[in-house]
Amino acid sequence: MHYAGFFGNDDLDAVHNASLRILEATGLRVQSAGARELLAGVGCSVDASRERIRIPAKVVERAMATIPPSFVFRGRDPAKDISIPEDRPAFATASSAPFVNDPKTGERRYATSRDIANIAHLVDASPGYDLFSISVLAEDSPPGQLSLSRFYPALKNCSKPVRSNTPSIKDLEAVLELGRLIAGGAEAYAERPFINHHYCPVISPLTMDLSSTESVIYLLERGLPVYGSIVPNAGMTSPMSLAGTLALGNAEFLALCVLMQAVRPGSPVIYAVLSTVADMRTGAYAPGAIETAMLQMGHSQLARRYGLPSGGYIGLSGAHQNDAQSGYETGMSATAALLGGADLFNTGGLLGSLLAFDFGKAVIDGEIALMLKRLARGMDPRDAAGCLGLIDEVGPGGAYIEQEHTAANMRSEAFLPRIATRDSFDGWTGAGSRDAARRAADEALRILGTRNEAAIGAEVDARIRKAFPGLVPGEAGL
Amino acid sequence: MHYAGFFGNDDLDAVHNASLRILEATGLRVQSAGARELLAGVGCSVDASRERIRIPAKVVERAMATIPPSFVFRGRDPAKDISIPEDRPAFATASSAPFVNDPKTGERRYATSRDIANIAHLVDASPGYDLFSISVLAEDSPPGQLSLSRFYPALKNCSKPVRSNTPSIKDLEAVLELGRLIAGGAEAYAERPFINHHYCPVISPLTMDLSSTESVIYLLERGLPVYGSIVPNAGMTSPMSLAGTLALGNAEFLALCVLMQAVRPGSPVIYAVLSTVADMRTGAYAPGAIETAMLQMGHSQLARRYGLPSGGYIGLSGAHQNDAQSGYETGMSATAALLGGADLFNTGGLLGSLLAFDFGKAVIDGEIALMLKRLARGMDPRDAAGCLGLIDEVGPGGAYIEQEHTAANMRSEAFLPRIATRDSFDGWTGAGSRDAARRAADEALRILGTRNEAAIGAEVDARIRKAFPGLVPGEAGL
Repeated sequence: MHYAGFFGNDDLDAVHNASLRILEATGLRVQSAGARELLAGVGCSVDASRERIRIPAKVVERAMATIPPSFVFRGRDPAKDISIPEDRPAFATASSAPFVNDPKTGERRYATSRDIANIAHLVDASPGYDLFSISVLAEDSPPGQLSLSRFYPALKNCSKPVRSNTPSIKDLEAVLELGRLIAGGAEAYAERPFINHHYCPVISPLTMDLSSTESVIYLLERGLPVYGSIVPNAGMTSPMSLAGTLALGNAEFLALCVLMQAVRPGSPVIYAVLSTVADMRTGAYAPGAIETAMLQMGHSQLARRYGLPSGGYIGLSGAHQNDAQSGYETGMSATAALLGGADLFNTGGLLGSLLAFDFGKAVIDGEIALMLKRLARGMDPRDAAGCLGLIDEVGPGGAYIEQEHTAANMRSEAFLPRIATRDSFDGWTGAGSRDAARRAADEALRILGTRNEAAIGAEVDARIRKAFPGLVPGEAGL
Repeated sequence: MHYAGFFGNDDLDAVHNASLRILEATGLRVQSAGARELLAGVGCSVDASRERIRIPAKVVERAMATIPPSFVFRGRDPAKDISIPEDRPAFATASSAPFVNDPKTGERRYATSRDIANIAHLVDASPGYDLFSISVLAEDSPPGQLSLSRFYPALKNCSKPVRSNTPSIKDLEAVLELGRLIAGGAEAYAERPFINHHYCPVISPLTMDLSSTESVIYLLERGLPVYGSIVPNAGMTSPMSLAGTLALGNAEFLALCVLMQAVRPGSPVIYAVLSTVADMRTGAYAPGAIETAMLQMGHSQLARRYGLPSGGYIGLSGAHQNDAQSGYETGMSATAALLGGADLFNTGGLLGSLLAFDFGKAVIDGEIALMLKRLARGMDPRDAAGCLGLIDEVGPGGAYIEQEHTAANMRSEAFLPRIATRDSFDGWTGAGSRDAARRAADEALRILGTRNEAAIGAEVDARIRKAFPGLVPGEAGL
């Protein structure tokens, strides 16, 4: 496929050069002393008193040259590993919402570890999803088990790759111990580290924080998979200019690459700069704005210039219900990002600007994912000549429905949806006049009512529960 | 902008050559004797007994060479004329639904001429729309005034370009007389023919009909604006193969070009091949299928090969309500078509696979149109360097909200929606927890409650009503 884009090669060079200028002239504040030391070691200038580092262009170019072209997400089940960009588009849930719309009542409440178990089951059972980014927080987490209360129900109920973050090295170490228990030992886990770590080490504008940055370094030092997202917000933390925001976000990404390659040259990365715009009437975060899609297209075009996979949070919505706005904001942004070349989509399930998970929304987004996978698959131009005999045989005024060719291709050539209605008005009213939100919520309930084929074995589970006394149950179920 | 596309130049040539083969080897059935005569006159072979014509490649190439690169839609108000592709993207309503959801009760019922007047007012007042394609039929049309009952309320209440069709030459002549009465005479109308005619003269597969074909010839002979749409449906009237359907639809388009250029060389056209797929589980028409978007992208890429504007019905939905499905089907298809290079979008207002008009849906689609216009406007890469001073001044950890640059650009750089909520959950519930469908329906009622600034003058109106006794009132209002 040829991707849509706003820029020619000269334009891309101009943005890249602006980013280099930002890194050389303005630089970043780096709060971690360890990070400053690593950056100094590869040739950055460090003003320790002001925590400011500046990065020469040649240091950036040297770091970019050592990054491999792909990033692998591993699942508990190796058959579900995915690599981007090869397996593009890869669809994931969006993550870390505090609230959930209860799957039975629809009422908004704080999310719990049981919700995580149920979402894990739903993601595992939904062919649209490739990756489970842990969608919600767990209000019921016991003291000291904040991250275990999220990763345990997720890994227990989903054999696809699981992705999330931890707030501290202590939590991170507990999660890694969980991984080793599931793998059956440290060696087995080191061979296939199937927990996919993610942080936001760069806070726009131009600041590397302490805790996330040190978690990234910790993981890279041990050869474990990790990548970072950067989220400039035009008007608040970056210029109210799309190209200006691209230049800033791109500079922040390049700085993160320099740090990551300084820790371990050859570490894979994802170009996950997820720029948005603020609605300056109120200062509101607007993830569903069309400019968010445009910024993703711009970043994906820059990622291709660097030969790197791109994407992340895209296709989100400010809607509080699974309604028309939720549909068009998600659909438009995700489609634009796909055609702009993004590889990774943390799209599924969230409403209200990332504050609430909705099971029906996750089902709809799973169907949108399948539509976009069909779009990405494209079409075979050789079919044009290949159909000449058929077209001549059917002739003017003939019917293709009777042709064997039609029966043979109807399931591969066109995606057949589960949620979208194609019934007549009478057929639809006869079936209860359910809107898409209701049909999707019903489908979620149906899936959650089935046995979870991906659930972890009892023996392994007992081992985990013994190692972590007081752990949440982690069981899916309504 | 660089458009997204599935094909390289060789692929486009392959589809084009397959289309030429179809026209030469299979040919079309042409039901109009006049059309057959015109086609024979430019070098087609005609088998009159079987109404079959075959078109040599050189005849096609000769016709394509005489088509101008743009198509102009004229409005009653010359300031509202639009030309594609120059003014791309041009947004219109989709048209000719038998039903309407009543703007006050939401109940589905047969549409009337008053609905057309109200929709005309809504379209005129909505900045997202450039063109009013008459959205519904009029159940209340008096005997013999089928088309007048549609064009009169439309032209009376909308000064933007109005587009529709007529079922017969008799109806067409009445509509042209209406145009002359509004213009103030035959000469004035001939100078600015502001009724934009549209037909479906080619019925897939490979059939030119009688009535629409003769209407097209009638209009072209008089130098009046007209274009045709062609709607292959994969699995029913074209191959269950996207590229096979492209080749067939493209052949049908080329045949229509040959006919139109035979009538009047230099007549402008729109590449409006609006291929869809059938859902072969039921045979249902599926305008919201992602394959419909893919086919539009393919046709738009072919249109660019020919140097012609493209587009038409795209962004439609099978949903019966203004719900999430309606949102994502419209949003995804229209976005894909825009990034695939389509210029014209007959997107707005219809639900239920083109069977019912919904005022709230039209409002939402008007907002989607504004989002896509923002997307098409792109961004200025020179901003990247232009923001370097600002980025340095704000520095690491600074705030852009305080910058004059932000205030100066917040309205031009980011689209500020009316319908999409960006409120917090508490703000949204505090304002009544209205979903997007309700907010849009309320906005439609607000617009319909305002005075229509575009309504035609009383003197002209009296002239029209005198010329056509018994004419429907044509008044907008609830």
